[in-house]
Amino acid sequence: MTIRGEENPMDRPDTDMHVMHARRVGIDTQYEAVVFIRKDSHVCRAEGFTAHTRIRVQHGRRAINATLYQVTSDFLHHDEAGLSEAAWRRLGLTDGDEIVVSHPPLVESLSSVRGKVYGRRFDEASLRGIVRDVVAGQYSDIYLSSLITACSARPLDLDEMTWLTRAMVDVGEVLQWPMRPVMDKHSVGGLPGNRTTPIVVAIVAACGLVIPKTSSRAITSPAGTADTMATMAPVDLDISAIRRVIEREGGCIVWGGAVRLSPADDILIRVERALDLDSEGQLVASVLSKKIAAGSTHLVVDLPVGPTAKVRTAETAAALTAGLVAVSKAFGLETRVLRTDGAQPVGRGIGPALEARDVLAVLQNHVAAPADLRDKSTMLAGALLELAGIAKEGQVLAVEVLRDGRAWRKFQRICEAQGGMRVPPQSCCRYAVPAAQAGRVTGINNRKIARVAKLAGAPDAKAAGLDLHVRLGDRVEIAQPLYTIHADAPGELDYALAYVQANSDILTVGDT
Amino acid sequence: MTIRGEENPMDRPDTDMHVMHARRVGIDTQYEAVVFIRKDSHVCRAEGFTAHTRIRVQHGRRAINATLYQVTSDFLHHDEAGLSEAAWRRLGLTDGDEIVVSHPPLVESLSSVRGKVYGRRFDEASLRGIVRDVVAGQYSDIYLSSLITACSARPLDLDEMTWLTRAMVDVGEVLQWPMRPVMDKHSVGGLPGNRTTPIVVAIVAACGLVIPKTSSRAITSPAGTADTMATMAPVDLDISAIRRVIEREGGCIVWGGAVRLSPADDILIRVERALDLDSEGQLVASVLSKKIAAGSTHLVVDLPVGPTAKVRTAETAAALTAGLVAVSKAFGLETRVLRTDGAQPVGRGIGPALEARDVLAVLQNHVAAPADLRDKSTMLAGALLELAGIAKEGQVLAVEVLRDGRAWRKFQRICEAQGGMRVPPQSCCRYAVPAAQAGRVTGINNRKIARVAKLAGAPDAKAAGLDLHVRLGDRVEIAQPLYTIHADAPGELDYALAYVQANSDILTVGDT
Repeated sequence: MTIRGEENPMDRPDTDMHVMHARRVGIDTQYEAVVFIRKDSHVCRAEGFTAHTRIRVQHGRRAINATLYQVTSDFLHHDEAGLSEAAWRRLGLTDGDEIVVSHPPLVESLSSVRGKVYGRRFDEASLRGIVRDVVAGQYSDIYLSSLITACSARPLDLDEMTWLTRAMVDVGEVLQWPMRPVMDKHSVGGLPGNRTTPIVVAIVAACGLVIPKTSSRAITSPAGTADTMATMAPVDLDISAIRRVIEREGGCIVWGGAVRLSPADDILIRVERALDLDSEGQLVASVLSKKIAAGSTHLVVDLPVGPTAKVRTAETAAALTAGLVAVSKAFGLETRVLRTDGAQPVGRGIGPALEARDVLAVLQNHVAAPADLRDKSTMLAGALLELAGIAKEGQVLAVEVLRDGRAWRKFQRICEAQGGMRVPPQSCCRYAVPAAQAGRVTGINNRKIARVAKLAGAPDAKAAGLDLHVRLGDRVEIAQPLYTIHADAPGELDYALAYVQANSDILTVGDT
Repeated sequence: MTIRGEENPMDRPDTDMHVMHARRVGIDTQYEAVVFIRKDSHVCRAEGFTAHTRIRVQHGRRAINATLYQVTSDFLHHDEAGLSEAAWRRLGLTDGDEIVVSHPPLVESLSSVRGKVYGRRFDEASLRGIVRDVVAGQYSDIYLSSLITACSARPLDLDEMTWLTRAMVDVGEVLQWPMRPVMDKHSVGGLPGNRTTPIVVAIVAACGLVIPKTSSRAITSPAGTADTMATMAPVDLDISAIRRVIEREGGCIVWGGAVRLSPADDILIRVERALDLDSEGQLVASVLSKKIAAGSTHLVVDLPVGPTAKVRTAETAAALTAGLVAVSKAFGLETRVLRTDGAQPVGRGIGPALEARDVLAVLQNHVAAPADLRDKSTMLAGALLELAGIAKEGQVLAVEVLRDGRAWRKFQRICEAQGGMRVPPQSCCRYAVPAAQAGRVTGINNRKIARVAKLAGAPDAKAAGLDLHVRLGDRVEIAQPLYTIHADAPGELDYALAYVQANSDILTVGDT
């Protein structure tokens, strides 16, 4: 049932415009546009603005909707409007610029969100409208939260998932490639160390396939692929630079942020994380919109399942796989989903430089290279080779290309093409965490291990993080080092240690 | 299906505490607690806080969860934390106080909200937990929005409504009265001028019944009952003062804000308005929690239904009536819901003093008193008299008590008991809006009429608002005044006029 509130935006009038002077107050509210205006200002009294109402702010031909916070102190003048960084960027302001403040026009798409809440199915047009308004910054966090909650409470069917994905693709940039096939891979997050991408790209490209891989920086994890890769080569390439690298080497590993692929996803994912709500439909649209926008034709998805991974049950994994495959088909994208072991981190290093060291060890065929990282990388690469139809036994070919050095040579050439190979930095402060008792390693908490690496400074401190010396099932003696924490400053080492001392279940050793 | 995000609060560690100095930055964010800290501060780097994350702030034995905004300018020192007014109040701070900042503990009740989103029914304990955390300020607007959306997408059944109502009652103050019955009335909002309460209370109290009426001030309307009453007598009475008035006169009309009845409602209603989501369950719990907390035993609800009223259809009205009656029963509250005409405002004046003038005209039996206000007031009072069992034909008795002056004398005594009767102020600036053509009045838009009154300065300017000279169906000649705008300043009159000129459908006159 619907009862209209008095604040119904449909009743918002277009009243007078008020000219104010923009002031950069240097407040980071992430994506939400916030405007600070004195409570006793003319505009607040005249327009009846109250704290937390949405207002329209225009500068030249640009306009945004923003959330109003009222200032009761005098850190602003009566004719000044302080803008958050997000609002400042979107309006392209310089201090003192004249801006026009007024009541916001109706955000049309909110009525479809309300409809969804009450059980009405989205149609394609309404999802387009919603995504357009989200990217235009018309949605406050309250609206974003309602949208995400509605999509979880009233799950999207396959059509809605497909329309949402298409809408998210269309509001961003779309890359096109003259050649076919265009390979891609994606790992569903939550598993520290899982740095297979550079190895997979090197192998696949060494086999003559095209794989223009755009990766993300860490948001809540100790390292994203882009952070790790950045310790070995430049990753901030624009589209034309990416094209040059692909034409020369067939593969690249770059930061996706420089290319505006599926910008809506970047906005939604933040609120999804805060709510800890992440529906099948949202995850499918989030993953596939970026891949489709990147111009991929063949995709392998690494789906780690484990008690402390992002996906925790077989049912969840099955539902997600079904959604990914079905929606991919609608876009002519060939997708294979591989369910992998998410019980513990992959490789030894966690943190940009430490993960890069593992990647290089695998590519250089070091005897000491982590076997799990090598095996998982060749498995994923093998799946891509099979998907492209250039191998029956993909992993066999992948192992061969890795062993005979072709992958390593290709990786070096890719780094050169991206701007020159770099040597990952090394940490100055280290501490080896000893086993409190003898026994077998019975559990490794992915989330807490990641937390230790972050407290030690990762990903901002490239060399920071930690180095795992044991894996599940290993037998350890008392006082034997379980993992070594790496940091760039003694203070950060202390933070990680304080957390380690306060949490006994980061890495559990059971009696035997 | 549930996929856990990396930000899963259950994994939030209890890391070190950081001592900072509190600074009042004078920023009004309504209920949401916001803390401003430098991005390059020690605490942000050490704890890995990013903008928009929730943090814990402690001062002495008080602690709140707040939303973090990061400051990239130097209007704060590295060891300073700027707090919004809401956070400042809740922590009871004075400038420079030492506060401790840390990661917030898990907000347990969020998991029940998540469960509701995925279709799990609330149980009584989970609703208690949610309401407790909401009142404690543990819910950011993102969480509140998710809760409200979930309750609309997964409608509450009668048990859930009852539990929610009880939880909302229990977190606030509860009034108890030695006498029975304790009468009460409520009008579902959205209808300008609908100021029946002072008249109803006067009639009912004059008949010897107890009716301790607490009313609200306007939030988005041009006047609340408390605003109107405040122009005739003091309304800011504390509980003991209310008791004295009731013991002496049996009735009162006071502001509920001085008494903390159902504080959760005040927090939820704000986000419901912003979302324009207002489910049956939320409205039932909102209305009844306040009445039950006020110690009422018999309640009459005025439910205006009309195209521009809050409730617009007969179906909505029926569902709402069923919920109100059923939940009332669970609390032993005798409730009768009267569906009334919500097609146009009630009375002539809209705005505190202008509505007070109408109220006094009815109580004093002026020949010119608005008949609709008199009839509706005696109808509601009559229903209460019948509900209390002291009259078969309630309205007949109500009319009699009004006509013979008993109601007027009772009202004067109530005003005296509340602190002394006052004369409502008069406006200095007026403008009569003329009919643009001859014909019949075919429509009056409640929301836009309210908007005109607000732009003219109501409710802050007590004398401001407007005076309706015509009603639906009236025949008007060209240039005949339709309504007069009242303001305290020429500027405010101009704002209202600008809006009137821009909106032709505030009051529509059709050809005949």
